[in-house]
Amino acid sequence: MTDLAWLLRLHGALNIDTIASSALAGNPLDDPAERPLAVYTPPGYDAEGSERYPVLYCLHGYTGDVAALVGGRAWETNVVQWLDRLIVAGRMPPVMLAIVDGFTRLGGSQYVDSVHNGNYATYTIDEVIPHVDHTYRTIARAGGRAVFGKSSGGFGALHLSLAYPGTFAAFASHSGDLYFRYAHLPSFPTAQRTLEKFDSIKAFVTAFEAMPKRPQAFYQTIEMLGYGAAYSPGAAQAFIIDLPFDRKTGELREDVFARWRAFDPCERVADCLPALREMRLRYVDCGRRDEYGLDIGARILVDRMRDAGLTVRHDEFDDDHRNVGYRYEVSLPELAEVLDRA
Amino acid sequence: MTDLAWLLRLHGALNIDTIASSALAGNPLDDPAERPLAVYTPPGYDAEGSERYPVLYCLHGYTGDVAALVGGRAWETNVVQWLDRLIVAGRMPPVMLAIVDGFTRLGGSQYVDSVHNGNYATYTIDEVIPHVDHTYRTIARAGGRAVFGKSSGGFGALHLSLAYPGTFAAFASHSGDLYFRYAHLPSFPTAQRTLEKFDSIKAFVTAFEAMPKRPQAFYQTIEMLGYGAAYSPGAAQAFIIDLPFDRKTGELREDVFARWRAFDPCERVADCLPALREMRLRYVDCGRRDEYGLDIGARILVDRMRDAGLTVRHDEFDDDHRNVGYRYEVSLPELAEVLDRA
Amino acid sequence: MTDLAWLLRLHGALNIDTIASSALAGNPLDDPAERPLAVYTPPGYDAEGSERYPVLYCLHGYTGDVAALVGGRAWETNVVQWLDRLIVAGRMPPVMLAIVDGFTRLGGSQYVDSVHNGNYATYTIDEVIPHVDHTYRTIARAGGRAVFGKSSGGFGALHLSLAYPGTFAAFASHSGDLYFRYAHLPSFPTAQRTLEKFDSIKAFVTAFEAMPKRPQAFYQTIEMLGYGAAYSPGAAQAFIIDLPFDRKTGELREDVFARWRAFDPCERVADCLPALREMRLRYVDCGRRDEYGLDIGARILVDRMRDAGLTVRHDEFDDDHRNVGYRYEVSLPELAEVLDRA
Amino acid sequence: MTDLAWLLRLHGALNIDTIASSALAGNPLDDPAERPLAVYTPPGYDAEGSERYPVLYCLHGYTGDVAALVGGRAWETNVVQWLDRLIVAGRMPPVMLAIVDGFTRLGGSQYVDSVHNGNYATYTIDEVIPHVDHTYRTIARAGGRAVFGKSSGGFGALHLSLAYPGTFAAFASHSGDLYFRYAHLPSFPTAQRTLEKFDSIKAFVTAFEAMPKRPQAFYQTIEMLGYGAAYSPGAAQAFIIDLPFDRKTGELREDVFARWRAFDPCERVADCLPALREMRLRYVDCGRRDEYGLDIGARILVDRMRDAGLTVRHDEFDDDHRNVGYRYEVSLPELAEVLDRA
Repeated sequence: MTDLAWLLRLHGALNIDTIASSALAGNPLDDPAERPLAVYTPPGYDAEGSERYPVLYCLHGYTGDVAALVGGRAWETNVVQWLDRLIVAGRMPPVMLAIVDGFTRLGGSQYVDSVHNGNYATYTIDEVIPHVDHTYRTIARAGGRAVFGKSSGGFGALHLSLAYPGTFAAFASHSGDLYFRYAHLPSFPTAQRTLEKFDSIKAFVTAFEAMPKRPQAFYQTIEMLGYGAAYSPGAAQAFIIDLPFDRKTGELREDVFARWRAFDPCERVADCLPALREMRLRYVDCGRRDEYGLDIGARILVDRMRDAGLTVRHDEFDDDHRNVGYRYEVSLPELAEVLDRA
Repeated sequence: MTDLAWLLRLHGALNIDTIASSALAGNPLDDPAERPLAVYTPPGYDAEGSERYPVLYCLHGYTGDVAALVGGRAWETNVVQWLDRLIVAGRMPPVMLAIVDGFTRLGGSQYVDSVHNGNYATYTIDEVIPHVDHTYRTIARAGGRAVFGKSSGGFGALHLSLAYPGTFAAFASHSGDLYFRYAHLPSFPTAQRTLEKFDSIKAFVTAFEAMPKRPQAFYQTIEMLGYGAAYSPGAAQAFIIDLPFDRKTGELREDVFARWRAFDPCERVADCLPALREMRLRYVDCGRRDEYGLDIGARILVDRMRDAGLTVRHDEFDDDHRNVGYRYEVSLPELAEVLDRA
Repeated sequence: MTDLAWLLRLHGALNIDTIASSALAGNPLDDPAERPLAVYTPPGYDAEGSERYPVLYCLHGYTGDVAALVGGRAWETNVVQWLDRLIVAGRMPPVMLAIVDGFTRLGGSQYVDSVHNGNYATYTIDEVIPHVDHTYRTIARAGGRAVFGKSSGGFGALHLSLAYPGTFAAFASHSGDLYFRYAHLPSFPTAQRTLEKFDSIKAFVTAFEAMPKRPQAFYQTIEMLGYGAAYSPGAAQAFIIDLPFDRKTGELREDVFARWRAFDPCERVADCLPALREMRLRYVDCGRRDEYGLDIGARILVDRMRDAGLTVRHDEFDDDHRNVGYRYEVSLPELAEVLDRA
Repeated sequence: MTDLAWLLRLHGALNIDTIASSALAGNPLDDPAERPLAVYTPPGYDAEGSERYPVLYCLHGYTGDVAALVGGRAWETNVVQWLDRLIVAGRMPPVMLAIVDGFTRLGGSQYVDSVHNGNYATYTIDEVIPHVDHTYRTIARAGGRAVFGKSSGGFGALHLSLAYPGTFAAFASHSGDLYFRYAHLPSFPTAQRTLEKFDSIKAFVTAFEAMPKRPQAFYQTIEMLGYGAAYSPGAAQAFIIDLPFDRKTGELREDVFARWRAFDPCERVADCLPALREMRLRYVDCGRRDEYGLDIGARILVDRMRDAGLTVRHDEFDDDHRNVGYRYEVSLPELAEVLDRA
């Protein structure tokens, strides 16, 4: 057992593998192309044995990374610990978990291919999954894979499910980024005000990185830059991002925002019905006090899927956006349930 | 001197007049048609004398009313006190001030005519102003009148200036409601969540009024109802309001929101150029940390007016939306300055 | 009916009288010695008639004054409106209400005699009460008087009840300042940090007064100065106050804080039993989420009174320190109930 | 290099050792007696070489543990990363770092011996240090050791320095728990209110642990229990803690609080002068907006040490209690500077 598994008091094992990604090589932001991948194998997993396991792919949220997701916090249970406990308690069958690293210098890639950030979707689909299937005893087909995540990780799970049919058999979006009109637009005034203090996006990011501690508005601003780098890159060059608002007045730029919304899963249901139909489980949840209004987005998405004749598991609960990891207790068994056993 | 003038330690006089309004008579919300009007006359004002005074019309903000605006608070200076002090200090010429009451059961009328609320614009223009001109020694023409206010009062000042050319010679909008995409849209998720707990808008309002103390979300919700009652009434019947979001999912209803935006001064510059050109002073200010992004709206409005060849006095300052009454120190002398003297 | 009564939509009448106080004349802070006194008379009150009324003396809280207490706020009911409504609804007998003005340049007098502030207790007992008894048709004896207030007004009600036996027959303390170890001590670090930026208390106060808007810490600091001016004045000279903490390190000064605690009603029960016994009603309430821990103080005070064999009406409720005016619905009828009728 | 070092992008190595502690064996709370110990060795460290290194002992704060301290967060630098970067940049000589695990079921041990929690001071001094000296190439004497930490870790650094002379040659307290009158007393009302809802401390803790998410007041309450378990245990039995306030009224219990204050470094300067004199560096810092008033405590402590003729490095900075890890940039080189080289 690795140090980490012991620190986290896991019954299963936790490896940190390295992926040398071609999809990310030479990315304009100069983020590492060699990325960590956390892989959990359940108790009883035997690399030499005959049993094969389905894999749950976990996508972290904005500002997250592998280190954050495997990190411990007093009285909290992280996603690996949840899975381990549920398996040990017999509440779900043993499965593997792989935590993909999608962090960028701007806080996160949203798991989309971007000329500005690098191709994080391609990296996940064409590099991470093959690595896992090659290295571990997996059920190496769509029926043996689910994808899930929280916040931007929930968005990523939806994006990869919609854009890469034939890859996964189920998804779960926990408080996922949805309906950008409510989720992101309210942050544009803050981003405009902050950026105005700097000559350029690059100057802002450089200052941000150099600060030992930053005002809240700076975090909100870099977040909008992170989304812009994913959804409306201006060029294959660092910090060249088309902003969804006028830099001088702050007015919404509908044309750029339309590029953002083209990624919004709420807007893509009609175009992605075949991919959605493939799924054995479509799981969407959100707290009804979500600070970003993501519960509204979840309702809109669910409504549209149901209107298209799809069944959806849709949960709402009385909570806000933070620390909702206890929802894994619901989703992980549901995801495992629908996947193939060897 | 009335009690109020003494309580507020004014040098001038402060009367509370009564307006029996026809424009508000029989309004569906059953708000009083008999309304208070606070009228300040400066030191030296002589009802029997020959001197005549310009009048600054002050419009209170959402949740405000005459009682609130003339109320005192420790270490604070209200609008009447500001005016009185500035005049006594010789920093501006003596003028009159009239505070219009635009409160409704839903928190405020936005000073627009609405089949749901009653005709608050008409009441202000056709009843309040004639009353003041008839009762006091005013300069009874556009050149002797300015209109100003803060927040929804700033919106009101803009609305009345745009919609009733020939009435005022100057306006001042302090942190006025502008660019509703940022100012109001972010509150729709909260309003949807709150209203969902009630069978109807009426049931919500009834519960709201009966509560000794309400959660913050309830205030945000009734505020959206107040704006809807002004901008998108559903009928000439209490609590029949077209909501700018889907009651079930919360999704934006673009058609209804378009009716709101038709009132947004940012959208009306092109159509109201003659009215805007009449103005001797166009004053717009806002704090750069305004919680409702109204500084962005101010920039957009100012930009559009300047693009149309108009001069604008535009101030930004490092503050949020609350307690910015100290801005009167700037605006009141500027307004008085451009008005006619007898 | 005065303007104010109409603005507040009262059925009774509301006068603002003037008290030219000897007790406050020449006070070192140079606060006005001529003070407003709001006097409410119920419907049916006849200055020429034969009926006489008991009087409830209302003491405002820190930063309050007469103007603030009679002011209106959207959807809120002030103390005069509460009383008026309860009387009109027949839920309590008609009584008079007198609102004493105890504001000072430092935010409030705590209704105690202080060489630094002036003698606000003496002014209330020896000047306000005689004025009311002389001017209105009152029941001019202890049995016809109660005293109540919220926050520092609750403290004042207790202080005057304890220090001036034979004056009132009942008191009500709503979220009153009690048990200063929890109520005030936690603010000392903030006060020390703020004052350190100024050469003297006077320099701080002068800067405070000149600012159009102040940081929260400045309000917390002047509040501590206000209490110090009342409880531990350093001299009969403005801004000479013994602070309960070391100005350099911030360390608690036990000797000065002991002078504060000598005013703490929790510490005075044993010494004031005769005064307490006289009371026909001892009413104490507080919200269980009071930000200043005043619910703890209320429990301690109530416990000590009960241990001394006294009955106490003690209510707790699920709320914080602000906007608890709805408690008047409980206390005002109870107070009126125990007072003499003519 | 371990996985962790790679995840954290360290140049040095990071091991997670296991300490099987006798001092913690059979502790009433049933916390693990087998504890992780993170040990960082700098680049160039050679287990077979001849060089020996001084060791900085790092004590985490309340709610922290080894996993939390070695965890990564976007755009943040943890203590190991700080040290690694400073060494690699040549800004300080290469030293080792050992992070002690002092977590308990109640959130933290404060690194004191307690019949309730177990003997965390003894464990640190008699087990952790010998393990490090035995396992690594250290300079195994006081001159080769410093102890430091933040918040409760700063307290721990002071406690161990005062209580175990001859062990360390330097300490650094970053925003350390000091002057409990300000630091802890203001939380007692909240703790009383919370505990009142439960039959016993045990019932509260059990409920706390079972909740997926807890209200803020619950965290504040368990924190007070954690300190009580360290400073005023009631018995060598889980959840038998003498509370520093009356469980029914919330009133301060001076006798119990005196037991807390006996641990307060501010109160121990006079009694621990020999231990303090041994130190080559006494480093104390705190932000001037510390929410717990710990800057005041730092001033008091520093004042008393200076009054006793000791030199102190005392820094204040414009920040609050959170995320002040950038202070390691100052303290770590200073600590390393005064320690022996082999």
